[in-house]
Amino acid sequence: MACLLSAAQRASAGVLFVALWGTVLGDRLLVVPQDGSHWLSMQDIVEALGARGHEIVVLVPEVNLLLRESRFYTRRIYPVPFDQEEQSYRYRTFGEKHFTDRSWLSGPQTEYRNNMVVIDMYFINCQSLLRHGDTLDFLRAGKFDALFTDPALPCGVILAEYLGLPSVYLFRGFPCSLEHGFGGSPNPVSYIPRCYTKFSDQMSFPQRVVNFLVNLLEVPLFYCLYSKYEDLAVELLKREVDLPTLFQKDPVWLLRYDFVFEYPRPVMPNMVLIGGINCKKPDVLSQEFEAYVNASGEHGIVVFSLGSMVSEIPEKKAMEIADALGKIPQTVLWRYTGSRPSNLAKNTYLVKWLPQNVLLGHPKTRAFITHSGSHGIYEGICNGVPMVMLPLFGDQMDNAKRIETRGAGVTLNVLEMTSDDLANALKTVINDKSYKENIMRLSSLHKDRPVEPLDLAVFWVEFVMRHKGAAPRPAAHDLTWYQYHSLDVIGFLLAIVLTVAFVTFKCCAFAWGKCFGKKGRVKKAHKSKVH
Amino acid sequence: MACLLSAAQRASAGVLFVALWGTVLGDRLLVVPQDGSHWLSMQDIVEALGARGHEIVVLVPEVNLLLRESRFYTRRIYPVPFDQEEQSYRYRTFGEKHFTDRSWLSGPQTEYRNNMVVIDMYFINCQSLLRHGDTLDFLRAGKFDALFTDPALPCGVILAEYLGLPSVYLFRGFPCSLEHGFGGSPNPVSYIPRCYTKFSDQMSFPQRVVNFLVNLLEVPLFYCLYSKYEDLAVELLKREVDLPTLFQKDPVWLLRYDFVFEYPRPVMPNMVLIGGINCKKPDVLSQEFEAYVNASGEHGIVVFSLGSMVSEIPEKKAMEIADALGKIPQTVLWRYTGSRPSNLAKNTYLVKWLPQNVLLGHPKTRAFITHSGSHGIYEGICNGVPMVMLPLFGDQMDNAKRIETRGAGVTLNVLEMTSDDLANALKTVINDKSYKENIMRLSSLHKDRPVEPLDLAVFWVEFVMRHKGAAPRPAAHDLTWYQYHSLDVIGFLLAIVLTVAFVTFKCCAFAWGKCFGKKGRVKKAHKSKVH
Repeated sequence: MACLLSAAQRASAGVLFVALWGTVLGDRLLVVPQDGSHWLSMQDIVEALGARGHEIVVLVPEVNLLLRESRFYTRRIYPVPFDQEEQSYRYRTFGEKHFTDRSWLSGPQTEYRNNMVVIDMYFINCQSLLRHGDTLDFLRAGKFDALFTDPALPCGVILAEYLGLPSVYLFRGFPCSLEHGFGGSPNPVSYIPRCYTKFSDQMSFPQRVVNFLVNLLEVPLFYCLYSKYEDLAVELLKREVDLPTLFQKDPVWLLRYDFVFEYPRPVMPNMVLIGGINCKKPDVLSQEFEAYVNASGEHGIVVFSLGSMVSEIPEKKAMEIADALGKIPQTVLWRYTGSRPSNLAKNTYLVKWLPQNVLLGHPKTRAFITHSGSHGIYEGICNGVPMVMLPLFGDQMDNAKRIETRGAGVTLNVLEMTSDDLANALKTVINDKSYKENIMRLSSLHKDRPVEPLDLAVFWVEFVMRHKGAAPRPAAHDLTWYQYHSLDVIGFLLAIVLTVAFVTFKCCAFAWGKCFGKKGRVKKAHKSKVH
Repeated sequence: MACLLSAAQRASAGVLFVALWGTVLGDRLLVVPQDGSHWLSMQDIVEALGARGHEIVVLVPEVNLLLRESRFYTRRIYPVPFDQEEQSYRYRTFGEKHFTDRSWLSGPQTEYRNNMVVIDMYFINCQSLLRHGDTLDFLRAGKFDALFTDPALPCGVILAEYLGLPSVYLFRGFPCSLEHGFGGSPNPVSYIPRCYTKFSDQMSFPQRVVNFLVNLLEVPLFYCLYSKYEDLAVELLKREVDLPTLFQKDPVWLLRYDFVFEYPRPVMPNMVLIGGINCKKPDVLSQEFEAYVNASGEHGIVVFSLGSMVSEIPEKKAMEIADALGKIPQTVLWRYTGSRPSNLAKNTYLVKWLPQNVLLGHPKTRAFITHSGSHGIYEGICNGVPMVMLPLFGDQMDNAKRIETRGAGVTLNVLEMTSDDLANALKTVINDKSYKENIMRLSSLHKDRPVEPLDLAVFWVEFVMRHKGAAPRPAAHDLTWYQYHSLDVIGFLLAIVLTVAFVTFKCCAFAWGKCFGKKGRVKKAHKSKVH
């Protein structure tokens, strides 16, 4: 047992902290990360584990976006067949494409194609890794105790099977409800909205019909996204492989949500909720940003970012947004690397990067304009800042819906919104006090927890390393689908009931015939003789 | 956020502990306990809350078994229409009756009647409480922040509704899978064995059939046990009341199990697992028991207790047991208040009470003979002592099965076992090393947790008091049973499919008729004219 303290408490607890955690450390962890925003939380956990004395190797493609060096882990670099320029082009294309108009009908297909620009690149990374002999030799000789990966793309899942390692998965719950499908966790379609539906947990009848149909599409979507990985697995493992069974090898799932944000639902004992893991205690603001905030006066500031993967947008949309931002009295800090919109108002400052969580924690922050990625959303919740949400792709539409149904933010369609829509939404979340009250209530519930999410994540990775797996395993995994739903039992009992009913009926009919039938026949016979 | 330390760590952490938990305390908690062994864990939690500065009132019938005074809470005594003698008589009868022979057929009925001897007394307690004007006046004026109860008998559940208080339930999960039935938590009958079945989570087809049928009996059993309470609720609340809806008022369920002992299964976010909460760090042994242990030599000791509610057994059975105990080389400490069996061997000492958890924690303890009540089982797990289990009533048969399937103990039927059976079972668990290895593995997994169960329980009771409820509430509670299972959606979609199929068929038939039918009719008409 280890007692888990928050970062701030650790600092104050000093020597005691070391005493309480006094386990002999030094296990070896292999990390198979996913580049982009998914890495942000994983990096925090990996660094915390590194600080606790574990030897950590992170597998990194030689061309990458965020997988930087750190003193807390060793990077093992493997070659990939594209250069920095192609990567930049793909991310830029990915960002821009989300601002192109689409019809209702072609929407899903366009969204799929846009995402594949980046997802295909991640697949190339995985292929390069699993075909790189030197790296595989190194891994086989590595004597790791566990593997830590993001299973949204299953490169790490395959590698865990290849190396025979127990796994810990870090996952947001997107796409395809993987954690429930593979974790044996019930996922009733009647009140748990499916990805992309933008439904809440209170669905009307037509919404439940749509949710039911979308649920049916999750299996084809899974194979659409992952069948190529199954081929890679067959190639590496040199045997027939069913990808879903690899996901079911009793990992611990660290899930990046909690039930203040996500709709309450059943979970399995090997699922650990660590939503808000990215909300570190705000550090002090740098002079540059402190100056912006101080100069904002009584109206305070608005923080605006579309996330780590989208830093520029088409000029026309940027001008519309700039126009809207000029209509509010707050100072706006906008993370934007594109060319400066010509109509940018005096209250709006473009910055190439901003300390988002620190700014959101400042008492002068009035609102947060966000793409509603899960990291940003949790930073909004932790710091109690009402949000205007401009979802772009992936789980962002669904995230926005969750905040909207709690009355803590307003969602806009970034393609269709006008300058006035954005200005009005900002005025609403800033001036209507209910938004602030609601987000503060969410914030207080979210932060009232027995263990900090980062400490919980560290505990469970270490648990898996200590026990070489040993996550609780439901016997559901040993049943076929019809056994799981007791269809064979119901069929058997129905057969008995029907047989008994049939035999009873036949017996009664026979008895009836014996008692009354003869008389009838006798009478009839008698009558015919009379005739 | 509060950091949770174990009892031992608290002692060493000293001042820091107070600083970390530095919330302003002093909420008011109403406790509606259940007498008997159920009180043991609840008392630990209530005392821990009292020590943290909360004002706690425990409702206690004037005649009771274990609900003693404490400096950590105030007892509010209410009158009951029976005396100490009747209570003793009922508990004695309850204990003795579990040793009477029964046939396979009459078994369940006899078990039910035996239990009702005590359960009826608890009902009289509840009736007396809910009809006692002075106590009700006191409670209404009490301004409590929350109510803490054991919902196995729903007196506290009714009182929470009457006083409009948010609740915390402390529950073992018996009977009737209440926590899943009322918590909206899926409870698949295919791998989750039902109470009294003695099945594991790996069931054969016939076992799954039986489990399915037992599951159907849970609703009648619920009404058998609780319909009288529904009448009491109607009388108190002065309106029609459906007892199940009272259970669903979004409590936090503190469940006295974990998934090292219980079979892994889904849980809801308002369920908190605190199994092993009763395993305090062993204190030092008293001189009396230290002397027994020291004198035991290399063979060590065996601890034997049938729990707080059964301290004497019929003479014939006692002599059989005494004979068995004389056949092993260990010293046996037997908690027994009946008359001394005449054949008691020299290695066996009868004691009126024994410090069970402290003795189990002693390195010289080789085995534990237990009735397999949940408290005893967890003390066996915590201390890593292999068990010989003699289950008597309630969940004890199922508890024994769980330990047996993990290879950490042997179960005997106390009615049918011979002296040799018991002696052989003891020799097996002591001499076959696999039992010790298995219980040590369970022990190490059970104790490897991020927060001590007692601290977790304290946290969640305080959470409910702080937020006046606010446990995560699944939208499943707002659906009817057919909506929950999407039967209306499936029916609707089926209707559409059938309608489309029917219309398509009709259109095809019509088209067929148009294309080929006319010719046919013309031919026919032509033919008849010809005739």
